[in-house]
Amino acid sequence: MSLSLDLARRVAALDPATFDPEAVRWARNAIADMIGCTLLGAPTDATETVLMPDLYGPGPCLVLGRRERLGMLDAAFVNGTAGHALDYDDTSKSLSGHPTVIIIPGLLALAESRGASGRALTDAYIVGVEAATRFARGVNFHHYEKGWHPTATLGIFGAAVAASALMGLDEARTAHAISIAASLASGLKANFGTETKPMHAGLAARNGLFAALLAERGVTGAPTALEHPQGFLEVFNGAGAYDAGRMLEGWGAPLDLLSPGISIKKYPCVYSVHGAIDAAIALRAEALPETAGVTDVLVRMHPRRLLPHVRNPATSALNAKFSLPYAVARALVNGAVLLEHFDDAALGDPEVTRVMGLIRMEPHEDDANDYGAEVAVTLASGEVRRQAVRAPLGRGPETPLPQEMLEAKFLDCARASLTEEGAARVFALLMGLDTLPQAADLTAAIEAATR
Amino acid sequence: MSLSLDLARRVAALDPATFDPEAVRWARNAIADMIGCTLLGAPTDATETVLMPDLYGPGPCLVLGRRERLGMLDAAFVNGTAGHALDYDDTSKSLSGHPTVIIIPGLLALAESRGASGRALTDAYIVGVEAATRFARGVNFHHYEKGWHPTATLGIFGAAVAASALMGLDEARTAHAISIAASLASGLKANFGTETKPMHAGLAARNGLFAALLAERGVTGAPTALEHPQGFLEVFNGAGAYDAGRMLEGWGAPLDLLSPGISIKKYPCVYSVHGAIDAAIALRAEALPETAGVTDVLVRMHPRRLLPHVRNPATSALNAKFSLPYAVARALVNGAVLLEHFDDAALGDPEVTRVMGLIRMEPHEDDANDYGAEVAVTLASGEVRRQAVRAPLGRGPETPLPQEMLEAKFLDCARASLTEEGAARVFALLMGLDTLPQAADLTAAIEAATR
Repeated sequence: MSLSLDLARRVAALDPATFDPEAVRWARNAIADMIGCTLLGAPTDATETVLMPDLYGPGPCLVLGRRERLGMLDAAFVNGTAGHALDYDDTSKSLSGHPTVIIIPGLLALAESRGASGRALTDAYIVGVEAATRFARGVNFHHYEKGWHPTATLGIFGAAVAASALMGLDEARTAHAISIAASLASGLKANFGTETKPMHAGLAARNGLFAALLAERGVTGAPTALEHPQGFLEVFNGAGAYDAGRMLEGWGAPLDLLSPGISIKKYPCVYSVHGAIDAAIALRAEALPETAGVTDVLVRMHPRRLLPHVRNPATSALNAKFSLPYAVARALVNGAVLLEHFDDAALGDPEVTRVMGLIRMEPHEDDANDYGAEVAVTLASGEVRRQAVRAPLGRGPETPLPQEMLEAKFLDCARASLTEEGAARVFALLMGLDTLPQAADLTAAIEAATR
Repeated sequence: MSLSLDLARRVAALDPATFDPEAVRWARNAIADMIGCTLLGAPTDATETVLMPDLYGPGPCLVLGRRERLGMLDAAFVNGTAGHALDYDDTSKSLSGHPTVIIIPGLLALAESRGASGRALTDAYIVGVEAATRFARGVNFHHYEKGWHPTATLGIFGAAVAASALMGLDEARTAHAISIAASLASGLKANFGTETKPMHAGLAARNGLFAALLAERGVTGAPTALEHPQGFLEVFNGAGAYDAGRMLEGWGAPLDLLSPGISIKKYPCVYSVHGAIDAAIALRAEALPETAGVTDVLVRMHPRRLLPHVRNPATSALNAKFSLPYAVARALVNGAVLLEHFDDAALGDPEVTRVMGLIRMEPHEDDANDYGAEVAVTLASGEVRRQAVRAPLGRGPETPLPQEMLEAKFLDCARASLTEEGAARVFALLMGLDTLPQAADLTAAIEAATR
C-alpha cells in the first residue's frame, strides 16, 4: 500500500464520535486563541502588504478583522498570514511549529463556502492536528534542523487532511490530497526574521486547502509521492534522515492534541519568562494587594531560561520583550502582562520602574524543574511572601490554561480589530463553537463586531 | 554582497537596447509557440479541473482560449497549467526544463493589468530566460537528478525576475523578489505522469509573479535566502552539490536564448523521431509529389534514437506517439505530422498503412550525428530518392525553425480554441509582438477569436 493511502486510511479510522471531550475543549480553545491572534495581526503591515488591491476577487469568505470577503483560497492565505504576523500563536512540540494557523484558515473558508457545523469544524481540526503531528514525527527534528520551516512544509499536510475531512473525501481522494500537497510544500528558515515568514503560514494554509479541493475534483497525485526515490521523504529530508514507520504509529492513541498537546502562549514576550510571570501574577492575586511596600524581589529560575538577554533591563519596546525584570515588575504592579505594556510609552511607568530596580535574579540547578520559577517579595515589615510554579500555565494538558487567562488574551488581541463588546460576544460564541449549527455564524459575528 | 543582490545587479546590467535582434526574434517565436500550446491545453481536463467555479474572482486577465477573465495571480496559474497540459511546449537544456511556460503567463497578466508594450514584454521575457538559465547552471544537473522539477523550482526565479523587469523594480526590490521566490519554490518529480505535473508549471508561474508583486509592495525576504546555511542552495541541493559562482558567470554574453538556445517541439510525438520526420517532409516537398509509386523506404538513425519502443508499428493513438514507422509514413503521405494524426480514427488511413509496411530501419554509428536521420525512398522505376538532416529543425539556433513550420504548429494548436480565421490573425499579431503599442491588444485579439 502506498504511504499516502496508508496515512489516508489512518485518517479515516479516526472516529470523531469517540473523541475525548477534553480534545474538543482543547480544539475550541486553540481555535479561539488562533482567531484572537488573527484579529491582532489583521491591521499590521504583514497583512496590509499581502492584501493588494485588485489582486483578489470578491467571495464568500471573511478576512477576519476587516471588511473584505474573498474567495476560499485567498481568504485562507490572508488569514493565515495575519494569524502568524506577531508569532503569538500556539505551538506543537511534535510539529516543531505552529499547528493551528495552518489548519484553521482553510477550515473557516470551507465552512463559510459550503456550510459546516461548529462540531464538524472542531472535529476536522482535531484530525488535521493528528495528521500534521504524526507526519512530523517521521521527519523531525532533522527536517527542522536542515532548514525547512515545518509550520509550512509539514503543516500543509495537516491542512490538506483537515480540509479533506471537512469535505468528507473518501480514502482514495484524501490520499491524492496528501500526494498533491507534497508538490506544494515550501518555506525556508533562511527567511525567518523577515515579512516572508508569516506569509509561509498563509501559503501553506492556502495550498493545503487547495490540495484537498483539487483531490475533490478528481485531480490525482502519484500514489508514491511521499516514498518515491524522487518523492517528499528523499527529496526534502534525504536518505536515512526519516522514518516512515513513525508516521504510521499510534494514531489517536492518544491524540497528539492531548499528549504531548499544544502550548498556548499567554504573554506577548519571550517564552522563557512565562513561568516567572505566572508566579508573580499568582503572588499578586493571592498575597500582594499592592506593590507600594515592596523592598526586594528575588526571582529564581533554571539557568537554561535565565540567559543574559533575559536579564536585560528594558530600555525599548523591543528588548522589553526579552526582559525578565520588566515582565516580573509588570506582573507584580498590574497583575497582568498585556500587549499594551510593550509599546515605548508604557516603559516609563514610575512604579514599574521602581519595582524593576528591586529585582535580583538567581539560578537554581533543579533540572527536573527547568520551566519552573519562584518569585519571593520582601515587604518593608521584613515579611517575605513567595510563590513558585513548576511550569508555565498553558504549556500542555498537565498545566492547562485557566479559561479566564485564555479569555483575557483573546480580548487583548481582538480589540485590535473588534469593538470591546463585540469581542466579548465572539469569545462567548467560540466557547460554544462545537454546538454552533453553522460555523459561518462565527465569522458573521466577527464581521458584525469589526470596528 | 548577498547572492540575491548580486544576481539582481546582473539583471539590471542587461540592457534591452543592446539585445541582438535575433534574440527578439527568438522571444517572439517562443512566445507564439507558448500561446499555441496554451490554446491547445485550454479545453483539456488538466485545465478544466483547476478552473473550479467560485474559487477565483473576476479580474482583467484572460484565461487564453476561454471566456473567463481573472485576477493576475489566478490567470497566471490557469494559463501556466494549460500551457504545460500536453507537454508540447519548448525546452531549455540549461534549465533541464520548460522555460517559457513559467515566464509568459505572469508577463501577460501584468501587461493586461498595468499596460505594457509588446517590446517591453519580449524584453522582460529575454531577461527572465537569462535569469532562470544562469541560476540553473549553478544547481543542475544534481538538482534535476535529485528529484526536483526544475521547470517549477528553478523556473520560478525566471518568472520573478521577468515580472520585476516588466514592473521596473530597482535592484534592491528585484533581490527581494528572488529571496521571496526561494520560499515559494516547490514541485517533485515523483508527481510526473499525473495531473499534478502541469499544475507545477501553473503554480511556479503564479508564485514567481507573486514574489515580484510582494517585493514591489515592499515585502522583504532575507538578503541571504539563497546562500544561508538554511537557504535555497543548501536545503534544496545540499552541501557540495551546487556552484554559486556559475550562477553569476557570463550573463548575456551571449544570451542563453541564443546559445545554447531553446528547442521548439515541432511534432506532437516523441522527440527522437523529429529528425526522421524532418527528412521525410523535405523529401516529400522536394522530390516526391506523391507516394503512390513508392516500393521501399529505408530510415537510418543513430541507435540512441532508434530504440525498441520507437520501432513499434502504431496500433493505438498512444503508441503512435512513439512510432517511427507511423511518423515517417505520415510525413511522406501528408507532408506534415499534425495533432489530428494522433487520434485513433486517423490510424486506419490506407495509404499510410501501406507505406508503413514498406519501412525498414537501420542504425548508423556516426556519434557526431546522433540527432540526424536519413530517409531513402525507392520508386517502382528503381530510382532511389534520399534526404538527410543533421539535426531536427528547431533544435536550437544552428537549425532554426522555418517560420512556416512555427505557423503550422501554432494554427494546429490554436484551432482547439480559436476560429481558423482568428488563429491566423493572432499569429500575425504575434509575429509583430515587439512592435505592438499594448501587449494587451494580443489577448484582446485572442479573446475576439475564441470560438
